[in-house]
Amino acid sequence: MKTLNVGLVGYGFMGKAHSNAFAQVNHFFNLEHQVKLKSVCGRTKEKAETFAKSWGYESTETDWRELIKRTDIDIIDICTPNDSHAEIAEAAAKAGKMILCEKPLALNGAQGMEMVKTVEKAGVPNMVWYNYRRIPAVTFAKQLIDEGRLGRIFHYRAKFLQDWTINPDLPQGGAALWRLDVGAAGSGVTGDLLAHCIDTALWLNGDMKNVTAITETFVKERMHNLTGKVEKVGIDDACSFLSVFDNGSLGNFESTRYARGHKALYTFEINGENASISWDLHDLHRLQWFDHNDQGNLRGWRSIHVTDSDHPYMKQWWVPGLSIGYEHSFIHQVADFIQGVETGKPAYPTFRDAQRTQRVCDAVLTSGKDHQWHNVAKD
Amino acid sequence: MKTLNVGLVGYGFMGKAHSNAFAQVNHFFNLEHQVKLKSVCGRTKEKAETFAKSWGYESTETDWRELIKRTDIDIIDICTPNDSHAEIAEAAAKAGKMILCEKPLALNGAQGMEMVKTVEKAGVPNMVWYNYRRIPAVTFAKQLIDEGRLGRIFHYRAKFLQDWTINPDLPQGGAALWRLDVGAAGSGVTGDLLAHCIDTALWLNGDMKNVTAITETFVKERMHNLTGKVEKVGIDDACSFLSVFDNGSLGNFESTRYARGHKALYTFEINGENASISWDLHDLHRLQWFDHNDQGNLRGWRSIHVTDSDHPYMKQWWVPGLSIGYEHSFIHQVADFIQGVETGKPAYPTFRDAQRTQRVCDAVLTSGKDHQWHNVAKD
Amino acid sequence: MKTLNVGLVGYGFMGKAHSNAFAQVNHFFNLEHQVKLKSVCGRTKEKAETFAKSWGYESTETDWRELIKRTDIDIIDICTPNDSHAEIAEAAAKAGKMILCEKPLALNGAQGMEMVKTVEKAGVPNMVWYNYRRIPAVTFAKQLIDEGRLGRIFHYRAKFLQDWTINPDLPQGGAALWRLDVGAAGSGVTGDLLAHCIDTALWLNGDMKNVTAITETFVKERMHNLTGKVEKVGIDDACSFLSVFDNGSLGNFESTRYARGHKALYTFEINGENASISWDLHDLHRLQWFDHNDQGNLRGWRSIHVTDSDHPYMKQWWVPGLSIGYEHSFIHQVADFIQGVETGKPAYPTFRDAQRTQRVCDAVLTSGKDHQWHNVAKD
Amino acid sequence: MKTLNVGLVGYGFMGKAHSNAFAQVNHFFNLEHQVKLKSVCGRTKEKAETFAKSWGYESTETDWRELIKRTDIDIIDICTPNDSHAEIAEAAAKAGKMILCEKPLALNGAQGMEMVKTVEKAGVPNMVWYNYRRIPAVTFAKQLIDEGRLGRIFHYRAKFLQDWTINPDLPQGGAALWRLDVGAAGSGVTGDLLAHCIDTALWLNGDMKNVTAITETFVKERMHNLTGKVEKVGIDDACSFLSVFDNGSLGNFESTRYARGHKALYTFEINGENASISWDLHDLHRLQWFDHNDQGNLRGWRSIHVTDSDHPYMKQWWVPGLSIGYEHSFIHQVADFIQGVETGKPAYPTFRDAQRTQRVCDAVLTSGKDHQWHNVAKD
Repeated sequence: MKTLNVGLVGYGFMGKAHSNAFAQVNHFFNLEHQVKLKSVCGRTKEKAETFAKSWGYESTETDWRELIKRTDIDIIDICTPNDSHAEIAEAAAKAGKMILCEKPLALNGAQGMEMVKTVEKAGVPNMVWYNYRRIPAVTFAKQLIDEGRLGRIFHYRAKFLQDWTINPDLPQGGAALWRLDVGAAGSGVTGDLLAHCIDTALWLNGDMKNVTAITETFVKERMHNLTGKVEKVGIDDACSFLSVFDNGSLGNFESTRYARGHKALYTFEINGENASISWDLHDLHRLQWFDHNDQGNLRGWRSIHVTDSDHPYMKQWWVPGLSIGYEHSFIHQVADFIQGVETGKPAYPTFRDAQRTQRVCDAVLTSGKDHQWHNVAKD
Repeated sequence: MKTLNVGLVGYGFMGKAHSNAFAQVNHFFNLEHQVKLKSVCGRTKEKAETFAKSWGYESTETDWRELIKRTDIDIIDICTPNDSHAEIAEAAAKAGKMILCEKPLALNGAQGMEMVKTVEKAGVPNMVWYNYRRIPAVTFAKQLIDEGRLGRIFHYRAKFLQDWTINPDLPQGGAALWRLDVGAAGSGVTGDLLAHCIDTALWLNGDMKNVTAITETFVKERMHNLTGKVEKVGIDDACSFLSVFDNGSLGNFESTRYARGHKALYTFEINGENASISWDLHDLHRLQWFDHNDQGNLRGWRSIHVTDSDHPYMKQWWVPGLSIGYEHSFIHQVADFIQGVETGKPAYPTFRDAQRTQRVCDAVLTSGKDHQWHNVAKD
Repeated sequence: MKTLNVGLVGYGFMGKAHSNAFAQVNHFFNLEHQVKLKSVCGRTKEKAETFAKSWGYESTETDWRELIKRTDIDIIDICTPNDSHAEIAEAAAKAGKMILCEKPLALNGAQGMEMVKTVEKAGVPNMVWYNYRRIPAVTFAKQLIDEGRLGRIFHYRAKFLQDWTINPDLPQGGAALWRLDVGAAGSGVTGDLLAHCIDTALWLNGDMKNVTAITETFVKERMHNLTGKVEKVGIDDACSFLSVFDNGSLGNFESTRYARGHKALYTFEINGENASISWDLHDLHRLQWFDHNDQGNLRGWRSIHVTDSDHPYMKQWWVPGLSIGYEHSFIHQVADFIQGVETGKPAYPTFRDAQRTQRVCDAVLTSGKDHQWHNVAKD
Repeated sequence: MKTLNVGLVGYGFMGKAHSNAFAQVNHFFNLEHQVKLKSVCGRTKEKAETFAKSWGYESTETDWRELIKRTDIDIIDICTPNDSHAEIAEAAAKAGKMILCEKPLALNGAQGMEMVKTVEKAGVPNMVWYNYRRIPAVTFAKQLIDEGRLGRIFHYRAKFLQDWTINPDLPQGGAALWRLDVGAAGSGVTGDLLAHCIDTALWLNGDMKNVTAITETFVKERMHNLTGKVEKVGIDDACSFLSVFDNGSLGNFESTRYARGHKALYTFEINGENASISWDLHDLHRLQWFDHNDQGNLRGWRSIHVTDSDHPYMKQWWVPGLSIGYEHSFIHQVADFIQGVETGKPAYPTFRDAQRTQRVCDAVLTSGKDHQWHNVAKD
């Protein structure tokens, strides 16, 4: 059995989620390769070593450049804040490593395009962690759409609602709160949450033509953990946008961290001529399905418990009725990535695929500033 | 247009529900007869007159015997506590009146049988107000079962849960609280709530063979409104029973007024070889439908919003998506009763039909006392 | 007891809903006035008479001008298509009648403002049938907001989704389908469905500053029932808009008749600093309530079954757990209107209040055409 | 760091679930011991080796007696069919091994009592895999009850509904279908499904006094995989029972494999004087909570998304809103077991604790046969 040696950069929340995926994938998926947790890289040696120990990484590094130089590493997995994705990815590509990169791919479309070019030039397998594509219910939605069951699409709506930054005393910046620091994150909910909604939308419903957006920062100033001073908040706390898809359907997207009562309510719904689908991250194991072909008086939304062996990925897990959770989406993505390596058919989303989301985010953020409709750039 | 003159006995909660039905039926249903609210009878003249005025009854009586004597009354509608149903019904039958009687029909099966004999001998149209049969979703369930869509039936389960008598300081007896007084009510939740569950069950799933039950009175003594003294509580506060239906399926029934959090949670579910149905009074406009004939990976419980014009009774009302409520079940029942009178095909449940529920209640209450299985008597 | 004589103009779906409200209000509400169904006016004499008979109207008219001339009419209730509201209302005002007008008030803000001026000059009681304010759960939401329980508001989102015009073979125009005919309706979903969402939003969350919108007509041509020819469809089939409220919160609104699976899914949600509320017309008797003041680990959305006697309007009806439906919102509105007449405190929304919705609709429709943000005009 | 070496007996569905727990526990829980997957034992060498390889077991055995003899094994984990639990457990106890045993503990109470005595005499740590106690929402329910929030308990109801054996062509017996073979399983749904319901009930609500039950075998004969012949089915396909708890509350329990539409619908609800709780395995990350202490008009069932860091076990996992699944209950149980070993406070349920469930099952199965109420034996 062949091995694939992983070098992880970053050991925060995503480092944990990815490590779990690497540790679990061979337990549940039948692959030619065995994933090996080879090395984890983080700035603080002690923390890296604690992390390595609890996950079984064989070694640690404190400089990602050293990690990339190592010849015993096959895959570089980037779990750092957004502002370092590009630099690490480009170095890894030039070193001929396979690259997994956390989302969003880049700080903006221009940067993203450079990254795409670099990995494509290097010819290395590459993938971005838009993990929600691999929640079985979401993958199942894609399958139903690809079978043509919905007919002409009229509407796509999605929202990602949270409520964790309402408290104005919450500071910004630093290891735990870099998502509130525009320098590290690039944007607020747009790159963090809407990027997920957009990735799923483009995957399920194709590209968007144009958008109009509103962005808002409800709390204008927050103490900054790195400077110790109260500083202007540069991110968008909330963002809503309307769009037209290439297929003529209308999009309605909203994201915020100020929706009291919602922890991570990512929902989407797609309305077609013949059928509709909706899904909700808070109950991620269910798909709601409405089929106009059902007998008239018996039509209703079906709540499908996506846990049967003929549902995507589910034959690898338990038995009908027993659900899996959030973390499994990462395991599925690693499994697909490895199968992509083995078969030569790359697993999606590649950098190029993820770059489409970057372009939508750019148009949204620009519209949020100038209050105009903007076309979405196509690369 | 012919008229049907109603004489109502009792002006409590049910008097109001029935009066509404009589007042509304000709607005929404196309019938040969016009219902006229002729007279209302109650012991307190002033209250009867207030009631008459607000509903448009032309006259009042304070003695139901007088009401029955009147030749301008076609229908006697009995809305009094359970202990007077028999006497009034028998007098009305002998006077040749059509009779509508609140449920439960009688205090017990023996009394019920006398009533059945009397109305059948008199040959008068008769009906018992098991109104939940006419909630459109419930009627629709009956229709689906009659179409044979469920196949062999394995299970029927129902419960009726309330929480309004938990407070031990609540008294018993009198106009408002006769349901807690065993003298007036005959039994507690069995006759009040389980009777509804049993009526629906017998209608949807046929007769029962035998039962085993448990009954409990959680609050043993309560102040009695009529005597002013603390007295033993004679009713059952809660009752659960298991049963076998004639068709071999198993029944599980439960009722209580001590289920904190439930106001009037009447639910039933029926599991057949090919399909299952469930329903819930708290969301009465929905029917849950699971069809095993659906494509495997798309199977799920459908939540049918029973408000389309091809759903029972609904073409008389509004447009799809706009729901009706509790009171409409009574309007539907009056409409059906009148159509029964007009066509000669009696509307169900007749006294004889309702008597089947009486016999199940008897077996349940007996089993609650002697802890044995009991066969259900068949008349 | 004093009477209020109603003259109804139009006997379609809304004529039925209003007639029911007039017929029922005195059964359930304790008022000084008795409503009398005096006359119904419709162009086709025979239909008007059938309608009059089934509802108990004493007479009929075929010309609304004649109805307005009558001295035995106190209230003119306008249930005609949108393009005749202004003319009838102005004539009625000049004749000194009280006026109830179906929503939307007018074809546009300019026309609406004329109507406001006319009724205010005439000094007659006036009201517009935005009935959803009187669904008990919605009224309860208003009460909670007015108590200050939500704190600073961040978000308001609403949608009204239907699916009944997806079939391109459905014609436009005529008695049944005037809502698809831009001449009679003025606009499509904006005036029909979004107007409801906007009315509720302005009531619960105050005025809006500005909006950006998208409108779409999915089926471009339909056979016209009045001309017999295939003609361009002038209405908006779908409309989404973003807005900023005067209180700084963000609005997201969507409406369509092309959302397969939804009959009349009107939902709204409001997110405040301390609490959130949401509601859904498909289950209109429930209010969803999230209270951040609840103990941390016990926080969750509460599904409140709005059927207790301490919920708005509900002590007039049945007992806890037993729900009422769509039609009751009209009964409540008539009750409030009459109490307004009796107390001199007008019931809302008056014409002036409803005019605010008109101005938002104007801004939305304009933005849908020119793709710019527009301020909402204030009268 | 100390190690705990596991020897697993059986590599079926439960072998997989347990192996996952052993593999994952040190990734997420901070323990003094490292679990090592030392050896897996199964009758078929090749299958054992495949299983060992995919999970990282260092060795295999084909005779569990050999496994028990090994001095490098600390824990024997029994995942075999029910009829071999006793023999293996007793041998392991005598060899001084810690023992984890799949549920139900034994074929019946008499056998269970022998096992209890043996492990207690041997003084070895022992635990039974009633894993549902460790679903965070269920553990949270226990915590709320222990805090005394419910007050006097009136009702406990639970059901476990499945639908996978409706097809009469499904055979019985053998590796995959031993649960249908009375010889291997001892009973049907009673030991398989109701045992879970009973374990949770006894844990949350204390012991039961007595029961009355009904059992049914809907499909009387099935082809037997081991004999190749059609043979009588000896298990119970469905079982319902009523009970009285020691605290005076009433129990209602039901289980079946013939409830079309339900995959693994394990639900329980407990109604107390002051509050009620309910839970559903199909949406295992939610707890329904009704608190009568809430303000009257704002009372409603709260749907608590049990994914916050102050919910049981959840601070080990992801962030609020991101759910875990079925498999995690086993990880939690291993973590608790090891902490029990480390602290000397044994994790529950021990064999003795699980034996209480055995005694209830005995009473239920006896009552199912003789149609009498039976007291539950206490050891």
